[in-house]
Amino acid sequence: MNYPNPNDLKITEPTLLIDDDTAKKNIKNMRQRAERSNVIFRPHFKTHQSREVAQWYREQGVSKITVSSLKMAEFFANDGWDDITVAFPANIREKERINDLVRKIHLNLLVESVESIYALDQLLETDKEIDVYLKIDVGTHRTGVDPSNRKSISELISALDDGNHLKFKGFLGHAGHSYKSHSAEEIKNVYSESIELFRQLNQEFQNGEKDYINSLGDTPTCSHFMYDQDYIGEIRPGNFLFYDLMQKQIGSCDWENIAVAMACPVVAKHPERSELVVHGGAVHFSKDYISWKGQKMYGMVVERNGNSWKPIDQRIFLHRLSQDHGKISAPQDFVEKVNIGDLIQIVPAHSCLTVSAMRGAMTLEGQKIDVMI
Amino acid sequence: MNYPNPNDLKITEPTLLIDDDTAKKNIKNMRQRAERSNVIFRPHFKTHQSREVAQWYREQGVSKITVSSLKMAEFFANDGWDDITVAFPANIREKERINDLVRKIHLNLLVESVESIYALDQLLETDKEIDVYLKIDVGTHRTGVDPSNRKSISELISALDDGNHLKFKGFLGHAGHSYKSHSAEEIKNVYSESIELFRQLNQEFQNGEKDYINSLGDTPTCSHFMYDQDYIGEIRPGNFLFYDLMQKQIGSCDWENIAVAMACPVVAKHPERSELVVHGGAVHFSKDYISWKGQKMYGMVVERNGNSWKPIDQRIFLHRLSQDHGKISAPQDFVEKVNIGDLIQIVPAHSCLTVSAMRGAMTLEGQKIDVMI
Repeated sequence: MNYPNPNDLKITEPTLLIDDDTAKKNIKNMRQRAERSNVIFRPHFKTHQSREVAQWYREQGVSKITVSSLKMAEFFANDGWDDITVAFPANIREKERINDLVRKIHLNLLVESVESIYALDQLLETDKEIDVYLKIDVGTHRTGVDPSNRKSISELISALDDGNHLKFKGFLGHAGHSYKSHSAEEIKNVYSESIELFRQLNQEFQNGEKDYINSLGDTPTCSHFMYDQDYIGEIRPGNFLFYDLMQKQIGSCDWENIAVAMACPVVAKHPERSELVVHGGAVHFSKDYISWKGQKMYGMVVERNGNSWKPIDQRIFLHRLSQDHGKISAPQDFVEKVNIGDLIQIVPAHSCLTVSAMRGAMTLEGQKIDVMI
Repeated sequence: MNYPNPNDLKITEPTLLIDDDTAKKNIKNMRQRAERSNVIFRPHFKTHQSREVAQWYREQGVSKITVSSLKMAEFFANDGWDDITVAFPANIREKERINDLVRKIHLNLLVESVESIYALDQLLETDKEIDVYLKIDVGTHRTGVDPSNRKSISELISALDDGNHLKFKGFLGHAGHSYKSHSAEEIKNVYSESIELFRQLNQEFQNGEKDYINSLGDTPTCSHFMYDQDYIGEIRPGNFLFYDLMQKQIGSCDWENIAVAMACPVVAKHPERSELVVHGGAVHFSKDYISWKGQKMYGMVVERNGNSWKPIDQRIFLHRLSQDHGKISAPQDFVEKVNIGDLIQIVPAHSCLTVSAMRGAMTLEGQKIDVMI
């Protein structure tokens, strides 16, 4: 087996490898796309949760970021980031954290109900006006106001205007349903529908003004299309930093853009049932999967090929996980060639969750990468 | 809503609650079952990964434990545990950790191939003989030797005998397929088949002697049956400490035995589609689920009722997770009654993975519980 990089690193246990050159290229590409579109690039940091990786963004001039919890906002505020959007409905139980952050940085919050707006306005201990986005359900049906409910949107904007500490900054959407696309055509539909929706909201509630900053843009749509529209002010993709099998499957990236793989030691071989067992389970990969020829695929087995990871054979993949065990399906002759103790490299189904589960990573040069704990 | 305990604790973010009284009762019950059966009780510590919880076992006289990785063995060895079985095929890349542990404690390892046995024997730097279990595939088909392959078992025992540092301690099995049972009857079949298999192995390879310690016993079978057989020397259940929805579904426990629940703040309400959104996602619960009326169920919404958690209404459960969001299905009138900022309590599908994802917990009295990092 030829796995020069990980073996050079003397890896002994399940390890998340980051190809930092590729990740930095991914940042550069997305930053340039945002520049060409004249929109603010506010990348989502939940994908990496790392001060070291954050520094790669800083070196490329990024200063505004997105996170998915107040805890993560606090983590990055302590690392010197001072313009942070929590793209998650404000958790009004975290009064202390919100006020600490408001004192320290420019914090942007997200609401979707009058109830939240009142509670938020009351808990704030500040003379500042806090920028607040109104979450619009652009079709994912997870959170957000139904955009056809114009009355509700009016009421929410009025409630923000009535507050003592809150300012309506703009609409924010997340087209999470783009992740379920099967083709560029389907992604395009998601993109076009969202854009049209935001155009209407801009005309109707913002009088076509551009002072508001409306925020949109997930990895699949941002990887395919330019947000060169007047009524979108910023994009917030996150996953594009590393990409993964899910993004490869829906066509957001190619193999050479994928910047993470797990390295897992082989602990058992079962050629009689065409299986390998690695140390690398649900606590390492998470249990997210993609569907692959009627089976669950938690990861695809790859090898380094030039400057990127490539599948060895599309029949060789991670098809079952328990807490610490990973079972790999593979043709019998492959299983026989592998030795106990070899490292198998595996691109995960969903990089964000794998990074979060692993709590740390390593570059291909052996540099340790911290992850928020 | 009536959630006295968590609200008293001023919980502000997703928090794993442990009912320590119930957990201690679960330990006591299982310890007594082992005593009555005259088998060693070697609980699996992967379920909690916590020094505080480990202390509850210590207080009840437990001194032998099971873990699922060498890293976890190291963690508990540093906490004073000195008889540890790593119930996972030996990872021969971790030479340094294995030798450190061998110097420090009584370490029991697991093998299933001649290749591993040779590698293990070579990497050991010790004058001691290390106790090694031979992993038998009792029907789960994850790891282990096919028990019908008597020739292979003979070769493995010979290889252990030939080694300089290894001693054949006994056979070890894990009937993970018991987790897929739907009734006590099915669990009984798994139990009986494993027992019969171990009886045959004992007769054939151990001359019916009892000096060997054969190890078996997962939470479902241990919760139902007594391992009062001469050829089983120890049991290694883990999940019984907390139990969870999966164990409830297969009949290993009742609601009053379940000792963990997540407390999650409500951040959004959508009565029009009978849904609540909580802060509590894949990074908190893990993505393990059980099938429930044709849907995925990641957790069941509960309330404290006397000394235990009980479902409020079986239609109220966690049915979708993204990284930080949890979506709860609930009848419209329930959604309307809940307030933004309320805490919702949720028993997870799989407690071991939730504990591992959460990296920390809290007792119902507000005491912090550490989890290995």
